[in-house]
Amino acid sequence: MNAIRKYTIDQYINALTEFHGNFAPGLLIGGFMVGAAIPRMAQYEFFDAICESSSCLPDAIQMLTPCTIGNGWLKIVNTGRFAIILYDKKSGNGVRVSMDVSRLGQYPEIKNWFLRLTAKKDQDTEKLVREIKAAGDTIFTIQDIIVSTSLRGRQIEGRVRVCESCGEAFPESDGSLCRACQGMDIYSETSCSRCIV
Amino acid sequence: MNAIRKYTIDQYINALTEFHGNFAPGLLIGGFMVGAAIPRMAQYEFFDAICESSSCLPDAIQMLTPCTIGNGWLKIVNTGRFAIILYDKKSGNGVRVSMDVSRLGQYPEIKNWFLRLTAKKDQDTEKLVREIKAAGDTIFTIQDIIVSTSLRGRQIEGRVRVCESCGEAFPESDGSLCRACQGMDIYSETSCSRCIV
Repeated sequence: MNAIRKYTIDQYINALTEFHGNFAPGLLIGGFMVGAAIPRMAQYEFFDAICESSSCLPDAIQMLTPCTIGNGWLKIVNTGRFAIILYDKKSGNGVRVSMDVSRLGQYPEIKNWFLRLTAKKDQDTEKLVREIKAAGDTIFTIQDIIVSTSLRGRQIEGRVRVCESCGEAFPESDGSLCRACQGMDIYSETSCSRCIV
Repeated sequence: MNAIRKYTIDQYINALTEFHGNFAPGLLIGGFMVGAAIPRMAQYEFFDAICESSSCLPDAIQMLTPCTIGNGWLKIVNTGRFAIILYDKKSGNGVRVSMDVSRLGQYPEIKNWFLRLTAKKDQDTEKLVREIKAAGDTIFTIQDIIVSTSLRGRQIEGRVRVCESCGEAFPESDGSLCRACQGMDIYSETSCSRCIV
C-alpha cells in the first residue's frame, strides 16, 4: 500500500498530525480502513459513516470522506470496537471494516499496541509505523452489512423556541425549557459580560 | 470583522464548504464564535472545547482549533443551544459564546434563519451571508464560566480484551462481552468476506 486516498502515506501522516494535533497510530490504521472501504462503495453516489470508536478513528473518516460530525453524515455509535462502517443511507447497504486480531501474528508491534500489551513508554513507535505501513489493509475483516433502520434516519429540523429560563433558542421538541435548563450540569457562570468588550 | 483566525472570511467560507461538504450559515457564524473565544483563552497554553449543538457548530471548532472529536479535546454536550465553550481542562475556567436572540433586531435575515421563521427555500442566502459578515461577533453573549467537574475528565485508557462472541477487541471495563454483543442493534451482515479479495 503506497497511498491513502489522495495522499501518499507520508503526506497522510503529516495531514493527520496537523488535524489531530499529534501522531496517533490508530489514525494511520484508520486511514487504511477508510481507504479499504471507499472503493467498495463505488456503486453509491453518496454514503454516510458510522464509527464504532470515539477515539482517533472518527478523525480518519472526517479527513478522508465528506462525512463530519457537524454535517451529520458521521455518527459515533460507541461499541468500543475498532471499526468503521460506510453505508448508503437509503438502503442501509454498506461495508464494515474492523481490526482482525487473528491477523496480527506477523505484526507483533501492532498487536502490542492494539491489545495494550506494552506500556506506551515502552512502545517502539518507529517499528509500529513500519508494521502498519507494511500491513496496509491486510489486517482487517471486511464485511458487507446492512445498517439497522433505527440508525439510518436523519434528524429533521423542527421548530425553534426561546427558553424562558436562559433566553436562548432551542428545539421546541425538547420541551418547555431547553435541555440545559431542565437540569444538565455543564458550567457555572463566573462573571457575566453580556456587553462585549 | 475581516478575518476568522488565519483565514480571510472568504477563505474561511471556502474552507468550511470543503470540510463540511456544503456551505452552512451556522458554520460561518460558528467561525466568528470560535474567533471570539480563542483570544479570551490566551492565558492558557491549551484548551478543550464543548459544543452544545451537534449540528454544524462542531465543524467550526474542528476547523479552527486543535480540538477534534477523535482526539477527545472536543466533546458534544447536546443542549440544543447554539453555543460553544472553550476551557482550561485543569481548572475548568473558560469562556462560553452563544447566540443572543435579543441582539438580532437589526439582522432580520439572521433572525429568520436562526429561529426558522422562513422556510429554507424562501431564505435569501446572499443577504444572510451579508448580514452574518456585518454582524461578526456582535450578536453573541460572551460569558466567563467554569466547566463542571464531571465534564472535565478524560477517558483513561484501560485494559483491552477480545470479545468471546464477535472476536473483536474492546475495553475490558465494558464487561464480559463487547457493548455491541451485549445487544446493540447496529447492522446485520449480508455476506462475509473475511478473505479480502
